Amino acid sequence: MPEANEQFNLSCPIPISDYPNILLAHGGGGKLMHQLLEKLILPSFDNAQLESRHDGAVFDIGGQRIAFTTDSYVVKPLFFPGGDIGALAVNGTVNDLAMCGARPKYMSAGLIIEEGLPVETLWRILKTMKQAANSAGISLVTGDTKVVERGKGDGIFINTAGIGLIEHDLDIRPVSVRPGDVVILSGDIGRHGMAIMASRENLSFQSKIESDCAALNSVVQNLLDEKIQIHCLRDLTRGGLATSLIEIAETSGADIVIDETKIPVRQDVAAACEILGFDPLYVANEGRFICFIPQQYMARTVEVIDKHATDTKSAAIGRVESVTTKQNGLVSMITRIGSTRLIDMLSGEQLPRIC
Amino acid sequence: MPEANEQFNLSCPIPISDYPNILLAHGGGGKLMHQLLEKLILPSFDNAQLESRHDGAVFDIGGQRIAFTTDSYVVKPLFFPGGDIGALAVNGTVNDLAMCGARPKYMSAGLIIEEGLPVETLWRILKTMKQAANSAGISLVTGDTKVVERGKGDGIFINTAGIGLIEHDLDIRPVSVRPGDVVILSGDIGRHGMAIMASRENLSFQSKIESDCAALNSVVQNLLDEKIQIHCLRDLTRGGLATSLIEIAETSGADIVIDETKIPVRQDVAAACEILGFDPLYVANEGRFICFIPQQYMARTVEVIDKHATDTKSAAIGRVESVTTKQNGLVSMITRIGSTRLIDMLSGEQLPRIC
Repeated sequence: MPEANEQFNLSCPIPISDYPNILLAHGGGGKLMHQLLEKLILPSFDNAQLESRHDGAVFDIGGQRIAFTTDSYVVKPLFFPGGDIGALAVNGTVNDLAMCGARPKYMSAGLIIEEGLPVETLWRILKTMKQAANSAGISLVTGDTKVVERGKGDGIFINTAGIGLIEHDLDIRPVSVRPGDVVILSGDIGRHGMAIMASRENLSFQSKIESDCAALNSVVQNLLDEKIQIHCLRDLTRGGLATSLIEIAETSGADIVIDETKIPVRQDVAAACEILGFDPLYVANEGRFICFIPQQYMARTVEVIDKHATDTKSAAIGRVESVTTKQNGLVSMITRIGSTRLIDMLSGEQLPRIC
Repeated sequence: MPEANEQFNLSCPIPISDYPNILLAHGGGGKLMHQLLEKLILPSFDNAQLESRHDGAVFDIGGQRIAFTTDSYVVKPLFFPGGDIGALAVNGTVNDLAMCGARPKYMSAGLIIEEGLPVETLWRILKTMKQAANSAGISLVTGDTKVVERGKGDGIFINTAGIGLIEHDLDIRPVSVRPGDVVILSGDIGRHGMAIMASRENLSFQSKIESDCAALNSVVQNLLDEKIQIHCLRDLTRGGLATSLIEIAETSGADIVIDETKIPVRQDVAAACEILGFDPLYVANEGRFICFIPQQYMARTVEVIDKHATDTKSAAIGRVESVTTKQNGLVSMITRIGSTRLIDMLSGEQLPRIC
């Protein structure tokens, strides 16, 4: 295979002298991860699907459009206020499918268990996985279990992959974003990361902060049922709201302006962020998303999203100023004091292993 | 949710006093793993797909039958004679799809990387993944990368999930096995496990044993093109030939008799097994499979399989004596000396982390 040998003779595309070894920050959703993906991983599998930089791949099977997605979960600790790794592993994949505008249908689960994990712990995790799957209407149809020696894993890692059906004609993805689109944020941000942080460091804040971990398929389905012309959806996981906006701006060429005063952050979350030195814009969420829609759907979108939330309200936080496909778009924020701040990716991440 | 609460009040179905913690053997493909799957994991997600105990789930999308499968790879060392974790992760999922009689089409990859892995190592693994994917004609369309702290992983773990198209009317799975079916073994057994063992322990045998790691989709496609009425296929990975036969016997109720003298084991592999105290029947393979077919297709099947192999030959190693769906079937072997030996699952596995 001359082609294969040729590939092997190419040198490694990331300058090895800069970062010869993988750092935690390479998994953090920030610049280093971005570089690893863009320079090493995506070019290794160069194809149109990966090029779309979407939460999942979209393709046709038997004339039916489907979405296909995967994520591994390495959250620490395994149980945290508002959820556990099992709920996260199911909801995360359900949400990635929902962000493709797909109805979650089938999923797989791959368990990598560290020797010594109490069987009772595994059982509790399986139970929450089943509850989350039932609740989202997705069937776990295939799986795999591996065990690694003590000290070669960390309790349990879970990979899930999901298949969802796209039952409408919209083309929901970053490149569908248009000038004038309104950015709707589905609720307050920063809860998941702060809940993990609090439980990891055994901190007790005045009020207990619970993760926002939740399945988003029913609210997305409701938006679709209401014929809202969604251009793009993105859940705000690793890297938070800021990173999601930057990724969409870079992929679509959209210049996005957001208004800091419109972004809901609960007071206890804001206080915890301040104490610990985190910026809520970059803190991970597991039940929040942004939605890019034409202006005329704004009121209806907010109304639909708010029907699904009991303890938070959605908000129009910004708009797409312009779109040029010739270069990466920029994200800027009008701050509380009226100045404009350019929103950039963090180098690594504020919190490793939050999902 | 009263139903959910009720589930939570049930006690853990594996007697916690016997095995309160996960052991390495729970991942080994033997009795303990079987117990974990049958008593804890499968009941947690009770559904018809998982009940079929197949290498993958089979269902319809848009009128097209598809197979969906997942596996995580934790092989140690990452590079071994005849392959590496990248080739294994692609071929393993390609093979699980092929064993469902499906043409591999799309796959996902989830990487869990330990902090400190050389970027160059990651790059080499990605390159072999791409080569293996290209060679099997499967597209890697979606992925995920996580990084865990040093000492919380082991270099890299890879999960792959795959989607394949079933483009024929056969119902290839354990319950399709019929009395009189011939069992064809596609080649010599035991190479992968012994190659891993040799490289792990730094043993040097007289001749270098290389893993049989290979994609099986083209040979299966060829069998289908030849209109061979395949009843069941199974690749001989964790737990080897013996465990695969037992799993099929248990799921289908088939009593299977095999002939030890017909099972090809290379002399160097047999010698290595003897020195190290392993039984080749239980040693993992990554490019071998068994095929259950009606007697009249025997010669043609052997001919087709042998066209695809350069260094081994297939063999008819046994037959299905009877099938009763009322109870688990048994696997017995006529030994070299003419006695009959009942083939049972090992408790754990001979070799942990071979895939």
